[in-house]
Amino acid sequence: MKILITGGAGFLGARLARELLKKGQLNGRAITELCIADLSPPAADLCADARVRVHTGPMLNQSELFASGFDGVFHLASAVSGECELDFDLGLRSNLDSTRALLEGLRKAGNVPHLVFASSVAVFGPDASNPLPDRVADNTLPSPQTSYGTHKLMCEYLIADYTRKGFVDGRSARLMTVTVRPGQPNGAASSFFSGIIREPLAGVAAVCPVDANVSHPVSSPATTIRGLIAVYEASQQALGGRLALNLPGLNVRVSEMLQALQDVAGAQVRQLVRFERDERIAGIVANWPRGASADRARTLGLQSDESFKSIIEQYIADCLLSVDPVGPLKGLTPY
Amino acid sequence: MKILITGGAGFLGARLARELLKKGQLNGRAITELCIADLSPPAADLCADARVRVHTGPMLNQSELFASGFDGVFHLASAVSGECELDFDLGLRSNLDSTRALLEGLRKAGNVPHLVFASSVAVFGPDASNPLPDRVADNTLPSPQTSYGTHKLMCEYLIADYTRKGFVDGRSARLMTVTVRPGQPNGAASSFFSGIIREPLAGVAAVCPVDANVSHPVSSPATTIRGLIAVYEASQQALGGRLALNLPGLNVRVSEMLQALQDVAGAQVRQLVRFERDERIAGIVANWPRGASADRARTLGLQSDESFKSIIEQYIADCLLSVDPVGPLKGLTPY
Repeated sequence: MKILITGGAGFLGARLARELLKKGQLNGRAITELCIADLSPPAADLCADARVRVHTGPMLNQSELFASGFDGVFHLASAVSGECELDFDLGLRSNLDSTRALLEGLRKAGNVPHLVFASSVAVFGPDASNPLPDRVADNTLPSPQTSYGTHKLMCEYLIADYTRKGFVDGRSARLMTVTVRPGQPNGAASSFFSGIIREPLAGVAAVCPVDANVSHPVSSPATTIRGLIAVYEASQQALGGRLALNLPGLNVRVSEMLQALQDVAGAQVRQLVRFERDERIAGIVANWPRGASADRARTLGLQSDESFKSIIEQYIADCLLSVDPVGPLKGLTPY
Repeated sequence: MKILITGGAGFLGARLARELLKKGQLNGRAITELCIADLSPPAADLCADARVRVHTGPMLNQSELFASGFDGVFHLASAVSGECELDFDLGLRSNLDSTRALLEGLRKAGNVPHLVFASSVAVFGPDASNPLPDRVADNTLPSPQTSYGTHKLMCEYLIADYTRKGFVDGRSARLMTVTVRPGQPNGAASSFFSGIIREPLAGVAAVCPVDANVSHPVSSPATTIRGLIAVYEASQQALGGRLALNLPGLNVRVSEMLQALQDVAGAQVRQLVRFERDERIAGIVANWPRGASADRARTLGLQSDESFKSIIEQYIADCLLSVDPVGPLKGLTPY
């Protein structure tokens, strides 16, 4: 069968593509074609697989592709929160209009494809009448504090309606903050959740812009990908409704992240992180969930990462495996 | 100042227009121009007022009008739920794209106008993991069961984000089912909530397609208009957050509606209603809220109608006043 990944060349998309190619099937049906749509071309190892087709360009130009009869779709393409805050029109175009173009294409195809939408914990936020609970749950009232979260939430509801109408078999999974991300820091306010681990492991000093007692739900890339695939393979009945569900997150404090870093890589590496409060970032993060629960995902057998230590170990293993490492891992005590 | 009413020629829109012209001001600022935008032209009495400007045509063609510098907007224009279920594209166009066109115009004008969006109790519905509470509250998790409710909810969140960004000063008020509506039955599944009162009062037999113990939150036109104006005049602080709020509804059973009809118009009129269950309509109504609360609206001083009897009396008074009565009131005992 034909599978599409939008954003399939990105950090999570490429990882999902590799996992699907390795797995070879979904719900027992062989994946004969894996279409990777992205603004940029995917990595060489993906292009080399005979099952992979590459479509490069903005989603708004791909209506014909979307209507070409996919059996399943993972919709990951998205402008990130920082970009959407800077450029309101970009956010509407990339996160709302592009999703509509995808949905219209899938509807036009008429074969009611499976669709997994990567939504985000960013749909949650505090509102004057609705303070955030300690752990945001599947059925916590969303009150997004960013355009990114707003558009993700609007798409969740739109997909639920396309599903109700029988145009797609859609499901939305809210990703927790994925860490440790490789590469350079990006403009996202959440960037430091990766930076305070990645930079020290590469022997580079890092600044933590929030207090050590800040807590947040995070997930490793592997756990996130596992969640997306499980949500794809679940029946609507097992999903327990059309509304979006939270993927499991590890609710962890910054202080616990740094302790885990020390446990894995030693005190010297840990010492490379210093606290320097950034009021702008601290203010944004204060509006983020301190934790999340994921009751419906757990009924699908999904679990959060076991510990932040295991998340760091996954990152190190990935870096060592990578053909294109993002930076040397320095000062690393053997583990 | 310049005020715009979209859908200003409709049942509620025209009533709101008359009320605003009578009131003459909002928050103490004189209304010097009242622009009525609608697919159809408004009634003659509205056109006759020197302050009224009329713009006829689809909202999607009115970008220039929307950007012309309104101080305040009441956005009531909408395709109704039955239409949207029959024509999915019409719903997207009339209820989502039109609202976006309006928001973009207001943003372009740059003067951060007040905006009241008429949302709906239709945003609420049951989902496998989220059964409906006995009374849907301001902060009940919405789970719309129609495209109409889906698009209303998406617009609520979009307006909250435009407000957060400082493009408009927006607020969304969820209207309860407005009854008694004059005129002919329409395709809406809720049509009978008006029909079982309106038809007997005109001496015509009516069928009630649901059981007598069905309960639903309703509101008279006058109470609904009062709510829209109060939400306009409230400060963001008084509103208690950017998220939508419920307007007060009278939670009433069909049996109580019919008893009120008998109290007002006599047993003979009441006898014109017979029960004949329509499984399709009963099935739809089973997914509707049985009641609603409106805590935030109450802090603005808003109240639901006192009784269903008072709602019927309001309808009768309106019909007698109307220059263009929809039908004779027959069999009416003096009251």
